[in-house]
Amino acid sequence: MTELLNDVHSLLKEKNFFKVKNILKAENPADLAALFEELFYNNFDEQKEFMMLFRLLPKDSAAETFAYMNTDMRRHLIDMFTDKELREILDELYIDDTVDMIEELPANVVARILKNSTTGERKAINEILHYPRDSAGSIMTIEYVSLHKDMTVSEAFEKIRKVGVNKETIYTCYVTENRRLIGIVTVKDLFMADEDAKIFDIMETNIISVDTHEDKEIVANMFAKYDFLALPVVDRDNRLVGIVTFDDAMEVIEEENTEDVTKMAAIAPNEESYFRTGIFKHVGSRVIWLLIFMISAFITQRQLTHYEDMLVVVPTLVALMPMITDTGGNCGSQSSTMIIRGLALGEIRFSDFFKLVFKEFRIAIMVSAVLAVVAGVVTYLLYGHDILVSTVIMLAIICTVIMAKLIGAALPMLAKRIGLDPALMASPLITTIVDCCSIFLYFTIASYILKI
Amino acid sequence: MTELLNDVHSLLKEKNFFKVKNILKAENPADLAALFEELFYNNFDEQKEFMMLFRLLPKDSAAETFAYMNTDMRRHLIDMFTDKELREILDELYIDDTVDMIEELPANVVARILKNSTTGERKAINEILHYPRDSAGSIMTIEYVSLHKDMTVSEAFEKIRKVGVNKETIYTCYVTENRRLIGIVTVKDLFMADEDAKIFDIMETNIISVDTHEDKEIVANMFAKYDFLALPVVDRDNRLVGIVTFDDAMEVIEEENTEDVTKMAAIAPNEESYFRTGIFKHVGSRVIWLLIFMISAFITQRQLTHYEDMLVVVPTLVALMPMITDTGGNCGSQSSTMIIRGLALGEIRFSDFFKLVFKEFRIAIMVSAVLAVVAGVVTYLLYGHDILVSTVIMLAIICTVIMAKLIGAALPMLAKRIGLDPALMASPLITTIVDCCSIFLYFTIASYILKI
Repeated sequence: MTELLNDVHSLLKEKNFFKVKNILKAENPADLAALFEELFYNNFDEQKEFMMLFRLLPKDSAAETFAYMNTDMRRHLIDMFTDKELREILDELYIDDTVDMIEELPANVVARILKNSTTGERKAINEILHYPRDSAGSIMTIEYVSLHKDMTVSEAFEKIRKVGVNKETIYTCYVTENRRLIGIVTVKDLFMADEDAKIFDIMETNIISVDTHEDKEIVANMFAKYDFLALPVVDRDNRLVGIVTFDDAMEVIEEENTEDVTKMAAIAPNEESYFRTGIFKHVGSRVIWLLIFMISAFITQRQLTHYEDMLVVVPTLVALMPMITDTGGNCGSQSSTMIIRGLALGEIRFSDFFKLVFKEFRIAIMVSAVLAVVAGVVTYLLYGHDILVSTVIMLAIICTVIMAKLIGAALPMLAKRIGLDPALMASPLITTIVDCCSIFLYFTIASYILKI
Repeated sequence: MTELLNDVHSLLKEKNFFKVKNILKAENPADLAALFEELFYNNFDEQKEFMMLFRLLPKDSAAETFAYMNTDMRRHLIDMFTDKELREILDELYIDDTVDMIEELPANVVARILKNSTTGERKAINEILHYPRDSAGSIMTIEYVSLHKDMTVSEAFEKIRKVGVNKETIYTCYVTENRRLIGIVTVKDLFMADEDAKIFDIMETNIISVDTHEDKEIVANMFAKYDFLALPVVDRDNRLVGIVTFDDAMEVIEEENTEDVTKMAAIAPNEESYFRTGIFKHVGSRVIWLLIFMISAFITQRQLTHYEDMLVVVPTLVALMPMITDTGGNCGSQSSTMIIRGLALGEIRFSDFFKLVFKEFRIAIMVSAVLAVVAGVVTYLLYGHDILVSTVIMLAIICTVIMAKLIGAALPMLAKRIGLDPALMASPLITTIVDCCSIFLYFTIASYILKI
């Protein structure tokens, strides 16, 4: 347990609520959420304390802390909330946070939330909920500052003062004309402009916006590219429906990266952190792919049986098999990883297919040459200076490496083309395929050269 | 070539500079940089056009476009610049961008840059340059708005108007007292406060700041956690020396992720994009690890020779070897990937070592049970219903999976402990180690059960 938790703990025991309040006031909501998380998971006996502590939070940071919590904790709190408390929290929450929460919660809890939110909120929530799961619409917020083109700068400041308090960002304002987005003004522009300059004259009209149905990963990459604070989300008629803020984008980037990395290790993605995920969930998300790959490895094995006689004659070949297959697997993984990452960052497009495969081909030739020479020499020294076996190894390495890199380059691109996640075409799958092919190559070459 | 490039291209041929200017004016600097990149890499014959086009850029976006370019292009431009042009660009650039650039450029170019920057700039540049490569100090900017605690809100607004234009962010202002950071005020706070309220009364005093020497990855993760726009960087005496802005943090996150992903595939990290990297660089960054793993695979092979007699007697064992080693490799990679990602996101700490290893152990038992049953049955059906071979396979799978998951969990943690990058303990290395151990286990078990 952290020091903070200990202090709070003992103070609560002493019923010194005043002191606790002051401690909590000094903490950042994100840290408070972490504190509650510890309490929630480590001291299950102290659920009362959990609720008591939450009620001691200052009004303003209570909602924010709530927004930083995970689903289990939120759900637990909502169950304990009175309707009044729930309403207070919902008033403070930004609509997009409310929606994130609702997407995770069971129907009966959702019903209670909707019951306790205003008609306006309810309308907004439903609007956002009806966008596809990974779309810009699903991560946007509708709480932005909109200005009129004929306002003066000082009028704009007035409006920001009036409506700003419960907007997620006030630093980028949107100029709309009958709901269509016609311009963008940043608070910085306003500061730099003359008090009674017209918004129309200072607004930026070359607007970069995203469609409500745009993939959220693409939206996030746009933030990385343009360094925006917020990005307007428009419908098909260019009507402004909401904005995505940089913090949502950053979250998406981290999520997508985690998802890719885990998928590349043949693990079904899962949004919770490692320790928050139960053992059975871990098993479930790992065992499926393991089974698939294991079964397919039996195919590799079927091949080998064709060469059983050869194995008996030259056991050395068998001894060297892992070296060949591993090298092939590693080469393939390298290529696929480069391509998968390039696709994720938008640096590589399917239209580059041949350019890319050709590049990998040239790389493969050089890499294989280096590896072949080393492998050949080592084999020669270790195996009674048998030049034939060395030759087999060298040729096998060259063919395997080239084959592996081409497969590793092609598969992610093709996956992308047919709408699969390229991240699936990573190490484990590549290894299985490459193993199968490399063993085939290996023994075919051997049977020719060793005349078996 | 993109449409945009085509248009510009033909317009330049027609010497219709006015039209070109208007087109360029309408584009976002990030997109302009992309345009120049295409021109730079695809039409090497048209270097004159490249420079001509750059000179047609509107003053304000020229510097920003320059900031979005990569080192080669910047260097090319600087070589063509007159001292006057260079000075104009440097005036517009934020100090942190200038420093990023300088870190990549050769000494003689750097000398020319320093010669053409003001004494103040020079001092700032050198200050930032002297921080360790991946520290907060190295990515911070010194251009922030600082306020005095006794100012009124309206005085603060005045100051922001006066100094704001060339600050990277004006939305978070820093209250300092003889250079020590005593408070933070956001422009939103200022808007919500009364015109003649004192800064001292509205400033946030629970400040979250980072040390100049803090690792930039940790700084970036703080942005992801707290949703900050900017984070103050202080020295050991809590004196404010600069700020890191969210766009720098986002860049760091993307860089670190790419670095991890590539390292996990045994590729030496490289900051350029796939197509911008030359073939030899690609070869260089891949072949080293491949060699290391290939050589170490010879160890695996040495082991196998001990079992040659067994191979001859039961070739089936050989045929099933790849299935065992691949499954082991995949299990190990899964665990190591989960841990590496957890460590990168700060969700897992070394102090969790035993908790984590124990969790992986329990997961491994369940996973191995499932795999063993399936493998056993398949083997039984495929291999003349030989119950002994099936038993060997089942036991081998169980031992291999448990061993693999323990290795995959332990190595990244230990790497972290001794200051190595955990990302190195990924699939390729794990596979090599696991292969070696699993083959040993496999044949030991076999020799017991089959009494060879």
